[in-house]
Formats: sequence, C-alpha cells, structure tokens
Amino acid sequence: MAKRIKEPRIALYPAPVVLVSCADVQGKLNIITVICAGIACVKPPIISIGVHPWVYSHSLIESTGEFVVNIPTVDILAKVDYCGSVSGREVDKFKETGLTPVPASQVKPPLIEECPVNLECVVRQILQLGIHHLFLGEVVATHLDETLMDANGKVQGEKCNPLVYLYLSRE
Amino acid sequence: MAKRIKEPRIALYPAPVVLVSCADVQGKLNIITVICAGIACVKPPIISIGVHPWVYSHSLIESTGEFVVNIPTVDILAKVDYCGSVSGREVDKFKETGLTPVPASQVKPPLIEECPVNLECVVRQILQLGIHHLFLGEVVATHLDETLMDANGKVQGEKCNPLVYLYLSRE
Repeated sequence: MAKRIKEPRIALYPAPVVLVSCADVQGKLNIITVICAGIACVKPPIISIGVHPWVYSHSLIESTGEFVVNIPTVDILAKVDYCGSVSGREVDKFKETGLTPVPASQVKPPLIEECPVNLECVVRQILQLGIHHLFLGEVVATHLDETLMDANGKVQGEKCNPLVYLYLSRE
Repeated sequence: MAKRIKEPRIALYPAPVVLVSCADVQGKLNIITVICAGIACVKPPIISIGVHPWVYSHSLIESTGEFVVNIPTVDILAKVDYCGSVSGREVDKFKETGLTPVPASQVKPPLIEECPVNLECVVRQILQLGIHHLFLGEVVATHLDETLMDANGKVQGEKCNPLVYLYLSRE
C-alpha cells in the first residue's frame, strides 16, 4: 500500500450516531445528536460521549448528571440530522421532530420511543479534553425493543438497521 | 414499540474494530484487537481505547505511552480475530499472521501495512474504570492509503470496507 501522511486528525470508523436526550433541572427536555460516542468499559458498563462545551445540552447534562443514549435507525435519519443542526436554546426538538419522550426508569431525561435501544446513564466523570468534553456515563438501565429479538429473546443484529458514520469522509 | 428493560449493559453500535500495535521498551512488538474504541475529542484529536489490565499489551502501552490504531478491512477478518484470541506473551502475532510492521513517523510502535488507515497515538491519560482501563491517546500522525482516495486526494467512504461490530448481539 502507498500511504500519505496527513496532519494529525481523527479517522476512526465506523462511528455510531446516537441521539442523547437530556433535561434541565426544571424538566425542560432536549435532544442532541452525538457522533463522538464510544464503549469505555464493559463492566461496569460505561459509555463515553463527547459534547462541545458551548452547546445547550452540555450545560443540561453537567447540571443534572444524567443523560440517555438512544440509538436511532436509518428510518429517522432526517430527524437525527435536524437534532444535530439546531439548538435547544431556540427550538423544542421533541415538538419539531415529532419524536416521543417516554419516562425512563432511573433518570429524569426521557427515552426516545422511536429508538429501539435506550441506555439510561449517570455521569461519573467529565474530562475537559479540548473542543469536546468527554462525559463518562455509567449505564444504569437498558431498554431493548422486542422487534430486535427472536422468539427466545436473543437480539438479532440484522434487525438493528443503525446509522454508520465514516468519520474519514469528513474532509 | 414494546420494550423490555434489561440489566444495565453496554449496547452501543456500530462499534469500530481496530488493531492496536504496541511495543515494549526493548522494541518487542505486539498487536491487540480492540472493540472498545471511540472518538474522544476532535481537536486536539484524541482517541479512546479500552484495554483489560491483565492483557500483555496493557503493560506495553502503559510503559511506553505510545500505540498505533490500525483500521482493518474485512479482507483480514481472520487475522483480526486471531489477534484477539491469543496472547502476545506466548506468540509473535506479526509472525503468525503475516501482517507487516512498518516504521511509524512519531512513535516507536509500528504501523500495520495491510490496514489502510493508521493513527499514531501518544497516551495523555489512563482511566482505571473497571475491567477495562481507558487509554486516551492524542493522534500525532495520520496515514491514509492512496487507494482510499479519488484523484483529488479526497477519501471515498465506500472504499474503506471496515469491520462493523454490533455489540448488541453479544449475549
């Protein structure tokens, strides 16, 4: 292979694309689209999400210490794109997208009904790395849609239909 | 959607599957397959990888503070699987797989020639989260294979052919 050295950059793929739901201390809801998400630890189950410090959801997650990771399917790509394009300071993203908030079991931010997987998370650490702050959230409850499972309750990967983001192509 | 609450677990997908190359202080090489990898920050470019503290590569990365993230294609799936199944304490994985070490530009661990993307990383932080320790590595050089690019040097996502791991199906 003939390779070219480029300036240091992120080129890690495929990346998951998730909708993170959050709430302020008065219960006002928001959704943010996150592409910097990763598995940080399997036991205890900890997920990392990178969020710009200047966005509205950052202050919400920081103040409540809770968020929900919702994994969308390709069917709602336009809504995922919308939630990453506008600010919750100005619009009610649940109202504008028609996505449905459903009460979570352990945390105040809601699940997003239309996403087949929802992970309720409690913030354990925040690392101020640079243009992203990394929230490390321990998963305290997991919701899986029955349509993903076979008759024995085993999840079928081919039914997940997730968004797959190639960070490389962002040049 | 009808959902079931499961015990707290990691269910984040798609996850990248990467080969991490590392070296001990004497220059002995190893490769480890990592499925806990994520984009932690875009600027500075920081990647997180989760590694079990008991595996051989953990001590190598910890002692040298350097590693390379190599993104494989599906063509070498069997080698990726092998590198995640055996210990570098017992076998020389470069020799056994036939993968080719190529000198990096900024760090001592080598690039893996057969992977079209290589990210040279320097460890900035290690978080002892649980059964995985999370290494936060700043990308100090990026190598992209020319076969991924069009005539203008722009990366073509459809040429990447990566492994896509659905963590959900691991039950």
